[in-house]
Amino acid sequence: MSSEPISFSAESYFATQLPPPTLEHDIAGVRSFISRQQASGRNVVLVTSGGTTVPLELNVVRFLDNFSAGTRGATSAEYFLKSGYAVIFMHRQFSLQPFSRHYSHSTNPFLDFLEIDGISSTSSPPSESPPSESPPSESPPSSDPQITVTPSKRTHLLQVLTAYKQVHASETLHTLTFVTVNDYLWLLRAVSQELSVLNRKAMYYLAAAVSDFFLPRQKMSEHKIQSGKGSLHIEMDQVPKILKPMVDEWTRNGYIVSFKLETDPALLIPKARTSLERYGHQVVIGNDLNRRKFEVVFVERKTKTKNASGQDEFEENWLKIDLSKDKEKEIEEDIVRELVKRHEDWVRGGVLN
Amino acid sequence: MSSEPISFSAESYFATQLPPPTLEHDIAGVRSFISRQQASGRNVVLVTSGGTTVPLELNVVRFLDNFSAGTRGATSAEYFLKSGYAVIFMHRQFSLQPFSRHYSHSTNPFLDFLEIDGISSTSSPPSESPPSESPPSESPPSSDPQITVTPSKRTHLLQVLTAYKQVHASETLHTLTFVTVNDYLWLLRAVSQELSVLNRKAMYYLAAAVSDFFLPRQKMSEHKIQSGKGSLHIEMDQVPKILKPMVDEWTRNGYIVSFKLETDPALLIPKARTSLERYGHQVVIGNDLNRRKFEVVFVERKTKTKNASGQDEFEENWLKIDLSKDKEKEIEEDIVRELVKRHEDWVRGGVLN
Repeated sequence: MSSEPISFSAESYFATQLPPPTLEHDIAGVRSFISRQQASGRNVVLVTSGGTTVPLELNVVRFLDNFSAGTRGATSAEYFLKSGYAVIFMHRQFSLQPFSRHYSHSTNPFLDFLEIDGISSTSSPPSESPPSESPPSESPPSSDPQITVTPSKRTHLLQVLTAYKQVHASETLHTLTFVTVNDYLWLLRAVSQELSVLNRKAMYYLAAAVSDFFLPRQKMSEHKIQSGKGSLHIEMDQVPKILKPMVDEWTRNGYIVSFKLETDPALLIPKARTSLERYGHQVVIGNDLNRRKFEVVFVERKTKTKNASGQDEFEENWLKIDLSKDKEKEIEEDIVRELVKRHEDWVRGGVLN
Repeated sequence: MSSEPISFSAESYFATQLPPPTLEHDIAGVRSFISRQQASGRNVVLVTSGGTTVPLELNVVRFLDNFSAGTRGATSAEYFLKSGYAVIFMHRQFSLQPFSRHYSHSTNPFLDFLEIDGISSTSSPPSESPPSESPPSESPPSSDPQITVTPSKRTHLLQVLTAYKQVHASETLHTLTFVTVNDYLWLLRAVSQELSVLNRKAMYYLAAAVSDFFLPRQKMSEHKIQSGKGSLHIEMDQVPKILKPMVDEWTRNGYIVSFKLETDPALLIPKARTSLERYGHQVVIGNDLNRRKFEVVFVERKTKTKNASGQDEFEENWLKIDLSKDKEKEIEEDIVRELVKRHEDWVRGGVLN
């Protein structure tokens, strides 16, 4: 597994690595989703969410992963839907999804708030009785035990379920799944290219936690790496920086939001600025691993201001919420509201130009 | 991050790596669970399930992981419960769990089979009306929309829910959570030591996919590893083999089942035999990554037979199911039935000796 590091550009990456087998099928679905939204005049946002894996073996047993449950992406997708956007939700398999995220198996398992009426919890369900032939009584005839929702949980479930059914009925949510960083890169490029037909009405909200490193197909071992031979050595190459071709080639005047997650607060703003300078997109949302649930920073170009040497100037705006005052509040609500405002200006700017 | 590989024994591992902060609390819960089961005379099985992570940073962003959704462990736990065992289910955070596994967010999301009665799916829920003062009618008064289960899904949900409620009522399932391989090792040792009071009545069903390699605390970088400095080099040390101390020190005559997952079929049986010879436990269940849902092999010592040179002889028994005949059949049902038989003999053997 040890060999010379290879330096990949986006171009050489796609020329040497294989597309996922489901790509064409996935993109056909995306294309028809986008044309329906285009017909209805809706803005569309691509939300990427969850971590990406880097398999170490072709028959995958081990992989490198990035920490991400997908909370940011799944929560933001709900608020975008609420704001009238159509959402392409491109997420890591098994990461959280809009709506069902409220009922995680681990923190709020739904089986816990369903009840069986008509039997006690320790007996088995009664055998099926034939349909009742007796005259109608005050209560409706019921031959089977009924499943009901625990009263204290009803209001919240009804809210979530109602929003979920509305989104289904209006067909404004389209879900795509990836696992590896390779799946992610191929899918991101293809979806971005499709979405570019919407021009300024498309937003790209890149919340997935994407690996910076990967193991090219050519360097992978076929079978499970055997232990018992001392320590494990892994050498990975850098994933090409795809924001540059995304801005310059794949999208057309789309509004692009990237995220920067750091654990060292001193690096957050300098790295966000460097990213904007280098790739030329619209906003970097910076977040610190331990504070990301209640504060983020928007780093963006000052509009129509350049410094003495003609370079762009940047500004930072912190968004903070006070969880001690409102523990139900989700910072994604504010993030999305701020972005929707900026995106409206962006769409209007396009019309004026 | 590069330095000499360290060779860890179980002893030196626990002497140099830190226990998870929740260990004492977790073990207090396990202790009282075991003493309740001991009082009732039940057999207890420890089921480990899901993959373990190896963090690359102290403030974790990146980690190495092992492929495992936790299907084997979660499914087996249900069949052990059905067979009258009490189960300690020690699983990777967010991996599948008994009962709720039937309703994965990705493959069978529960919101899809709940319906709202009294409103159409595109309208918002009506505002709360005051309690009805009108005389009783044939149907019970209902001021709020009701949540009901889609008829086609009722029977299965009722089965799962009934089993789930029974297990809750009988308090025969105790759940523990781990994330890293370090959490896993500390928890496994402590739970095994507690469970050893049950002597032969304890079974250990080690289905978790545990990393063979780890990064000792002393070698981890504090913050997120920065990209932009070329390729990534990782060197990991071997996780100590814990089956040996588990058999010799942590447990006392417990019935120990380990798993061996390979992608190269030729390695499966030789590696399973080597494992039995080396550690002296009862059964290795071998499975091939791509065939594990419908065939496994039990590798075990032939009872009371040694070869000419006085060494143990081994036998292999394949367990296969035909999914084309019964696509609902789960191989874990057969695995658990076979193990329960063997465990009964094992418990009886202890009484006779």
